Amino acid sequence: MNDTASPTGASAPAADFSTSRLEAFSDGVFAIAITLLVLDLNVPEPEGLGGRSLASALAHQWPAYFAYLVSFLVIGIIWINHHAMCSLARRVDRRTLFANLGLLLTVSVIPFPTRLLATYLVARHEDAHTAAAVYAASMVAMSIAFSLLFLAFTRDARTLHTPVPPEAMRAARRRFGIGGLCYLATVGLAFLSPVAMLAVHALMALYYCFDQLAHARPAR
Amino acid sequence: MNDTASPTGASAPAADFSTSRLEAFSDGVFAIAITLLVLDLNVPEPEGLGGRSLASALAHQWPAYFAYLVSFLVIGIIWINHHAMCSLARRVDRRTLFANLGLLLTVSVIPFPTRLLATYLVARHEDAHTAAAVYAASMVAMSIAFSLLFLAFTRDARTLHTPVPPEAMRAARRRFGIGGLCYLATVGLAFLSPVAMLAVHALMALYYCFDQLAHARPAR
Amino acid sequence: MNDTASPTGASAPAADFSTSRLEAFSDGVFAIAITLLVLDLNVPEPEGLGGRSLASALAHQWPAYFAYLVSFLVIGIIWINHHAMCSLARRVDRRTLFANLGLLLTVSVIPFPTRLLATYLVARHEDAHTAAAVYAASMVAMSIAFSLLFLAFTRDARTLHTPVPPEAMRAARRRFGIGGLCYLATVGLAFLSPVAMLAVHALMALYYCFDQLAHARPAR
Amino acid sequence: MNDTASPTGASAPAADFSTSRLEAFSDGVFAIAITLLVLDLNVPEPEGLGGRSLASALAHQWPAYFAYLVSFLVIGIIWINHHAMCSLARRVDRRTLFANLGLLLTVSVIPFPTRLLATYLVARHEDAHTAAAVYAASMVAMSIAFSLLFLAFTRDARTLHTPVPPEAMRAARRRFGIGGLCYLATVGLAFLSPVAMLAVHALMALYYCFDQLAHARPAR
Repeated sequence: MNDTASPTGASAPAADFSTSRLEAFSDGVFAIAITLLVLDLNVPEPEGLGGRSLASALAHQWPAYFAYLVSFLVIGIIWINHHAMCSLARRVDRRTLFANLGLLLTVSVIPFPTRLLATYLVARHEDAHTAAAVYAASMVAMSIAFSLLFLAFTRDARTLHTPVPPEAMRAARRRFGIGGLCYLATVGLAFLSPVAMLAVHALMALYYCFDQLAHARPAR
Repeated sequence: MNDTASPTGASAPAADFSTSRLEAFSDGVFAIAITLLVLDLNVPEPEGLGGRSLASALAHQWPAYFAYLVSFLVIGIIWINHHAMCSLARRVDRRTLFANLGLLLTVSVIPFPTRLLATYLVARHEDAHTAAAVYAASMVAMSIAFSLLFLAFTRDARTLHTPVPPEAMRAARRRFGIGGLCYLATVGLAFLSPVAMLAVHALMALYYCFDQLAHARPAR
Repeated sequence: MNDTASPTGASAPAADFSTSRLEAFSDGVFAIAITLLVLDLNVPEPEGLGGRSLASALAHQWPAYFAYLVSFLVIGIIWINHHAMCSLARRVDRRTLFANLGLLLTVSVIPFPTRLLATYLVARHEDAHTAAAVYAASMVAMSIAFSLLFLAFTRDARTLHTPVPPEAMRAARRRFGIGGLCYLATVGLAFLSPVAMLAVHALMALYYCFDQLAHARPAR
Repeated sequence: MNDTASPTGASAPAADFSTSRLEAFSDGVFAIAITLLVLDLNVPEPEGLGGRSLASALAHQWPAYFAYLVSFLVIGIIWINHHAMCSLARRVDRRTLFANLGLLLTVSVIPFPTRLLATYLVARHEDAHTAAAVYAASMVAMSIAFSLLFLAFTRDARTLHTPVPPEAMRAARRRFGIGGLCYLATVGLAFLSPVAMLAVHALMALYYCFDQLAHARPAR
């Protein structure tokens, strides 16, 4: 991390970047990924309706709406927690920028497994399991990337507004560990019931939204 | 970050987030949703023209232009009013972030009912009614989400720059109620005349643009 | 413009909004519109190549690259000039927000005429003329919207950092008038030579980039 | 706006724009281009699977994932280096805005060669070479645009926070020259092995990420 070229470097932590552009770029990626999900909601072709009504064709697309809602919720929650995490930091170093890029990779790819799951959730069993496992695996990747980013943010106390107390760090690590294991378990669940896998992700997103970073924030 | 670092918390409301990233993320979603609408304007395939001229094929697509314009106007108005609402607040709490996420869900989904309506506005009656009802229902959802966000923003006077006077709050609630009922009425209108439903939304958007949040703004 | 609710309103111009969110939202729309253009560059289907090589199929798509470049340049120039115009203002009123929304409408629709022109530039004459006329007309609309926005920005000197001197205003109006007439002339040119129409827009964009708002900026 | 309002203009360089909107617009384009890449990950049609499983159809798409990852990495690195470069400048002039627009053109077009390469990486040799050469050429264009932007940023020392020392400028120029030659070499490599060409770009992106602008940053 020789990116400051400071001859002394004594008082300068290797954290050269303000958080503002990291937030601006991340907000852009989150906002686009969450909005691109709508492109996966297909309008049935008039010629493809056959004898069916549009209402019945739309109702038949329920897996697409379900997957859309869960992925929207997941990305929204990650954004809120990302927001909370960034507010801890005064400056970020290049390592954090890369960890952030890793998170953005796993976030911006979410429309792909979402579309996959929407298409195959009610297909023949084997393919529905494959699609669900890919979806769950992408959530595992996102969960790992978020944990790595948290570690990058909190690694050097000098880059934070207020040091995170050790017990809060331990609690946060425990949480991330448990969360990661739960996500991993949904990969297995994907092979039992793709619909249950999706429902569990909806529930976990709601749980995370109320809880995840609360204990990592500085005491007031 | 001394805005919530009070050890006693006596004067610190449970509003931990600055409005700036909420605005940045929301601006991103609004901007993307409003710009993705253009993907619903189809270029007729040269092979699909048959004997027709391109001009006639383009003219035949008028429902797509009409739906595009109305949805563009609606999203633009919501953005302006969102802008005005955010300027009331000093800080936002987690509850407001979630209410905002609810609004963004209803905004970012708008390209889907827009495409649906563009495709089916002049289809056989039953399907045109379905598409129009879905469009109107998505506007009802958006209207409800906006009202909930307004309540979340104004719930705790300590998070505002200037308290909203009670009579202004009552007036705002009356407005939101009347607006919601009007939106709901367009769901019924969708089954009578999809085109009239769309025209009413254009008119309501114009009305809201001049009026909606005027009475909720603090006196200066 | 009763949107300030100030009982006296004496010292408060009807300009309640900071320029920052107007800029953020506009930047988002400009950035998305300019980037969505890439979706119009089609990758030839491997099955559709027939006996041709990919290189020849790609070369055959030159109208798409030409239209892409011109539209990219046009949106980029509008963004730069929008940037310059916004830097004149201290505050914006609701009328300016609406004029800005009008400009964003004409900007965000540009991918549609671009795709249309890319598809039909070398089609049979009649359809190429139609596509070129639609493209030129969308530029006329954009030019009108930009002029209206300039008027909205400069209407009330109290909202500006420094008043624009009258001679600069007259010069700017003359420029906008001449620019608008040139754009209008390209609609006619579209019926003579669609390719020449596109080339003129490329040249005009380059001319505007060096010149348009230079004379409207405050004297130093 | 007293930053250039000097009546004499003696100390005011011809740099009229703050870097903030340049960064906001650029962040938007980077964020959208990097997120649009996901649209190139196709979900196989259920009807198109034939006898194959979805898992095998997804595995068969490995060139798309590889190209996605490399392009994501490349755009992410350019963003990080753009971020570092912008932090050098206090103000930007119109020439820099245009150089930046040139970079954004080469960045926002990346989803096109990426899709091209994903489609043709394992096609018949001749077409794979064409697609790979187009991909490599687009990286050459991006590299040239980045170098030009660096020159525009550092041309006038008065627009920088701290002058870049001459030896750092020479080192940066040497780096850009060597980088450009390496990129150029990958165009040749594209005709030998498209897969190797892509792998080299992945490695170069990783190298750049740790190194490129380190020596151009001011000492603190």
